[in-house]
Amino acid sequence: MSTDAVPDTTSGAAPGSWGEPRSRTVTWFDPMLTAAGGRERSGLETLEAIRDGVLPPPPIAALVQMDVVAVEQGRVEFRCAVDESAYNPIGVVHGGLVCTLLDTVAGCAVHSTLPQGVGYTSIELKVTYLRAVTQTSGPLTAVGTVVKPGRRVAFAEGQVLDAAGRLVATASSSLLVFPLPA
Amino acid sequence: MSTDAVPDTTSGAAPGSWGEPRSRTVTWFDPMLTAAGGRERSGLETLEAIRDGVLPPPPIAALVQMDVVAVEQGRVEFRCAVDESAYNPIGVVHGGLVCTLLDTVAGCAVHSTLPQGVGYTSIELKVTYLRAVTQTSGPLTAVGTVVKPGRRVAFAEGQVLDAAGRLVATASSSLLVFPLPA
Amino acid sequence: MSTDAVPDTTSGAAPGSWGEPRSRTVTWFDPMLTAAGGRERSGLETLEAIRDGVLPPPPIAALVQMDVVAVEQGRVEFRCAVDESAYNPIGVVHGGLVCTLLDTVAGCAVHSTLPQGVGYTSIELKVTYLRAVTQTSGPLTAVGTVVKPGRRVAFAEGQVLDAAGRLVATASSSLLVFPLPA
Amino acid sequence: MSTDAVPDTTSGAAPGSWGEPRSRTVTWFDPMLTAAGGRERSGLETLEAIRDGVLPPPPIAALVQMDVVAVEQGRVEFRCAVDESAYNPIGVVHGGLVCTLLDTVAGCAVHSTLPQGVGYTSIELKVTYLRAVTQTSGPLTAVGTVVKPGRRVAFAEGQVLDAAGRLVATASSSLLVFPLPA
Repeated sequence: MSTDAVPDTTSGAAPGSWGEPRSRTVTWFDPMLTAAGGRERSGLETLEAIRDGVLPPPPIAALVQMDVVAVEQGRVEFRCAVDESAYNPIGVVHGGLVCTLLDTVAGCAVHSTLPQGVGYTSIELKVTYLRAVTQTSGPLTAVGTVVKPGRRVAFAEGQVLDAAGRLVATASSSLLVFPLPA
Repeated sequence: MSTDAVPDTTSGAAPGSWGEPRSRTVTWFDPMLTAAGGRERSGLETLEAIRDGVLPPPPIAALVQMDVVAVEQGRVEFRCAVDESAYNPIGVVHGGLVCTLLDTVAGCAVHSTLPQGVGYTSIELKVTYLRAVTQTSGPLTAVGTVVKPGRRVAFAEGQVLDAAGRLVATASSSLLVFPLPA
Repeated sequence: MSTDAVPDTTSGAAPGSWGEPRSRTVTWFDPMLTAAGGRERSGLETLEAIRDGVLPPPPIAALVQMDVVAVEQGRVEFRCAVDESAYNPIGVVHGGLVCTLLDTVAGCAVHSTLPQGVGYTSIELKVTYLRAVTQTSGPLTAVGTVVKPGRRVAFAEGQVLDAAGRLVATASSSLLVFPLPA
Repeated sequence: MSTDAVPDTTSGAAPGSWGEPRSRTVTWFDPMLTAAGGRERSGLETLEAIRDGVLPPPPIAALVQMDVVAVEQGRVEFRCAVDESAYNPIGVVHGGLVCTLLDTVAGCAVHSTLPQGVGYTSIELKVTYLRAVTQTSGPLTAVGTVVKPGRRVAFAEGQVLDAAGRLVATASSSLLVFPLPA
């Protein structure tokens, strides 16, 4: 909000017609611990260490309420709780939550194929939205799979399913793969 | 997290090596107020009402710390604070945050062209990542523009710029436009 | 070519260093016959009529040397010959040929689900290039599958395989579905 | 066509109801001359040499009837004749032609930024179709622009305009950049 007319929603100054504020507290740990732990491990080992609580999950995982459920070389599965905190102005879960899940599983699927000392970053992501997501859709399951690994570019795809097993969204992503500075 | 080995990070059971937990409290209002207010207004009026604090911002805006900065027919501008709470496991802001911004501005740009009684939903979004985002990149500015309005399908594009004005990401999106049920 | 310096390659005026010109003659029939035949048939019947030589294949099929191999509701398979005539300036088959195949199979897969009187048009197509294609790659097989049919928007995906069965490219596409004018 | 029922359209065996066959002869030169000439030049010099008729245009240019109109560092412009030979089964120009143009201008825009000894290949292309193309739409103009050059990945976008200057399609593309083998 950029004007003085904007109510200060954190101090209770919102119009009475808005009702009671609702809130959620997001808790995380120093993300540089996770990043540093990743540099000492292969991609698969890094994801296993996050799954097993050896390394802290990154802050984004707490923000969007997602967790690693399963990881193997070339495939990862995440679960995501959905609640009102990700709602958009038209009364359903914001597509950005679905994008976040899909970017995550595409990236982690590629990460799971990389040896120690090799990094990755997303080049692009295309998400297709097949079905609206609401609070009653969840928990969501997101699966990422490597379509083609590579030493310079890798390709992955992802799917998001609702609790009833229906396909909610799909994605394809290209990722740059590169040697990390020693 | 799916195993008993996962530390309960909310109760302080995390390994001592993780350091102190950090947290942020996200506060929002009933998103159905915003959705209902939208049904009584044109798209432009809805976005103006959110910008001016007449309607509550949707929860996702609080979650990712973004706000409407400007809105006109066919163009919207949002601002987004970036902090550690959106970090990914490789030590930078998660691409999903950028996707959320781009999905928002593409959708709102199209929304701003729609009369009352007409709804929209994203069909697909393609995001191109040009530059990594860190805590020092922000605040981010996201601009959405309608490429072609339509009565059945509309097209929009988006850009995200960092605080230095450098292009961080671009997107193109197709949106379905349809009459809302009376 | 826009300047007088451009050799007239059709009259033999090309520099001697270019060697002998090569050529291919493309033959087709009035495409409006195919379009008219399609308006009298369901999508599946239209594709079957093209496959069986009851309706003429569209000109593009001759131009890129592709044919319907199989069609059922929600799935189509095309085959495509590859030769030098689709080469790009870096000495391999142009990606546009692969796009043409993928746009074709995505569109025909959706078409195969539509009743008579309902039309479609592509909204967008994203193609991922996994492997270079050369003259020795072919014939290519392209398969299109409907991910989600719909009365307003339908979604399809496609794959191209080389003669050795290796994945060459993938695509996702959104298509608009609409009643044809009577 | 895969069955005996398919008419041999090249020998005049087509059903009489299809009318007279129509044809176009496509003429090109050895594409390896162009590829070899490219290895001896920077990207900009290569494109200029094709534009000026010093190197033969690649076969695909003849197949889809496109030509370089202008080239500078980071931007290229092509023109494309449209005729019936690119029509699809629903009676308009096939989207694959538009993809071919967009893949071309995105790739050439990036190529124009590369020094001698550096190659490129498309990673992915997303095309948004804004308007149907018919024989009366042309000639089409396609413009490619580099969004971000790079030593490992480069990004480009493209636009296709019809003869009336209306936007027909847009695209974004990511390209891999790599040293050519000596």
